[in-house]
Amino acid sequence: MKNEILEFALALADAAEAEIMPRFRSCTVNWKPDGSEVTDADRRAEEVMREVIARRLPGHLVLGEEHGGPQGPTADPLWILDPVDGTASFAVGLPIFGTLIGYLERGEPQVGVIHFPAMGETVYAAKGSGCWVRVRGENAKQVKVSATTELRQAFVSACSASPSDIDPPKSGPAYKLSALIPKTRRFRFISDCVQHALVAQGRIDAAVDAVMNPWDIAALVPCVEEAGGVVTDLEGIRENIVWRPNLLSSSNPALHKQILKVLAGQG
Amino acid sequence: MKNEILEFALALADAAEAEIMPRFRSCTVNWKPDGSEVTDADRRAEEVMREVIARRLPGHLVLGEEHGGPQGPTADPLWILDPVDGTASFAVGLPIFGTLIGYLERGEPQVGVIHFPAMGETVYAAKGSGCWVRVRGENAKQVKVSATTELRQAFVSACSASPSDIDPPKSGPAYKLSALIPKTRRFRFISDCVQHALVAQGRIDAAVDAVMNPWDIAALVPCVEEAGGVVTDLEGIRENIVWRPNLLSSSNPALHKQILKVLAGQG
Repeated sequence: MKNEILEFALALADAAEAEIMPRFRSCTVNWKPDGSEVTDADRRAEEVMREVIARRLPGHLVLGEEHGGPQGPTADPLWILDPVDGTASFAVGLPIFGTLIGYLERGEPQVGVIHFPAMGETVYAAKGSGCWVRVRGENAKQVKVSATTELRQAFVSACSASPSDIDPPKSGPAYKLSALIPKTRRFRFISDCVQHALVAQGRIDAAVDAVMNPWDIAALVPCVEEAGGVVTDLEGIRENIVWRPNLLSSSNPALHKQILKVLAGQG
Repeated sequence: MKNEILEFALALADAAEAEIMPRFRSCTVNWKPDGSEVTDADRRAEEVMREVIARRLPGHLVLGEEHGGPQGPTADPLWILDPVDGTASFAVGLPIFGTLIGYLERGEPQVGVIHFPAMGETVYAAKGSGCWVRVRGENAKQVKVSATTELRQAFVSACSASPSDIDPPKSGPAYKLSALIPKTRRFRFISDCVQHALVAQGRIDAAVDAVMNPWDIAALVPCVEEAGGVVTDLEGIRENIVWRPNLLSSSNPALHKQILKVLAGQG
């Protein structure tokens, strides 16, 4: 069953790609109330994925960035969709955006697909079957996280400096990103889902994102965990991870713990 | 003559691509003394470009990131090459790296090529002939910078938080990047030459890089200026721009001035 769900999720990603790619570099960008971008590619790709799910799996629930859905944990089978994660990149014509497809049973992510249509690359996992990457035109390969356990040896990324102590939020915690940067071997800002896909492939060692929604998180969890890595929110909590407001992915518990400590101002 | 030089520069970019792309996602990464990455792709692509220049234009000088050259202004015709700008991205398998080719006469950049082999995109300019972008398989289009003149309306990027007041250098000025971020409409970190290529295309409004070498700068100058934009170092100096240690590209003098002020802690 799980493999059938994974195959179906990969087909969903192809359906989204068919809506997204003709609009890449040429679509109109509009602004949502929070100042973030939205395009016809986002809306149409989500609609098409919803249609395919409704036709084939009519009993399943769907939550998507553009057209809503359940606002909290549910026991029913649930698809969580982000048609274009990294719309800011998409909107300026950069290929570093991805379609995120997560499938949950009894609240836990079972299958995750991170598909990069403009890069021709897909990272995907089903619980218990490992994490795989497929580059267009090549065979899929199983991938694993890196072996780096020391922060001073680690290549760490964050999606953005906001919100953190660098650009503090109006309310809520200001994570000590400025303390983390000089403690790493290498630090780069890498966009959105891309950074977590790199952790899963062992290409970088850890990735921080201080603003996440369920549709940003669901697909990443099986990929990073099946690659041998760790995901929690920025306070170290794994429970109900899909509904947490932020995310840290890393290669192993030792590195994970060091990063949480520094972000909390105790490192 | 200038068009011949531009055609030759575009051919150099193709020669570099032939060395770079077979190594993308599969090459070995080594570390330079400053902690940055270097690969066989960097070395081989520069060697090939040098061979092509030596054969066709034996009187011309060459400065390249990997194999050196003149360390300051020269009156002779000078090619300045960065085979892979954004080696950190290249090394983790992200397509947001570019080959930079600048051509100078009497110390001034005359021709610039920013070629993104893995994105299939080239931004290029020759002095007096405008800035152009060519996407693989499509016709070239002339591009212009954006019309945004107010910082609070601007999409601004920086390459990195280091060095700035966020991750201060051991010596030298700490630009107030943390003050700039909240004053923009949208701020993102965008890698290396990519951000300046986006300014030239009017896709973002300004780009800051606090650590630049001649091979990072030379190709960008004709592109941004021929697109109607402004380039100076972070103190506002345009003279001998290729030899300055950092760079601000922006769409117009009004926006440029506001950003310089904020970075200097006066905004």
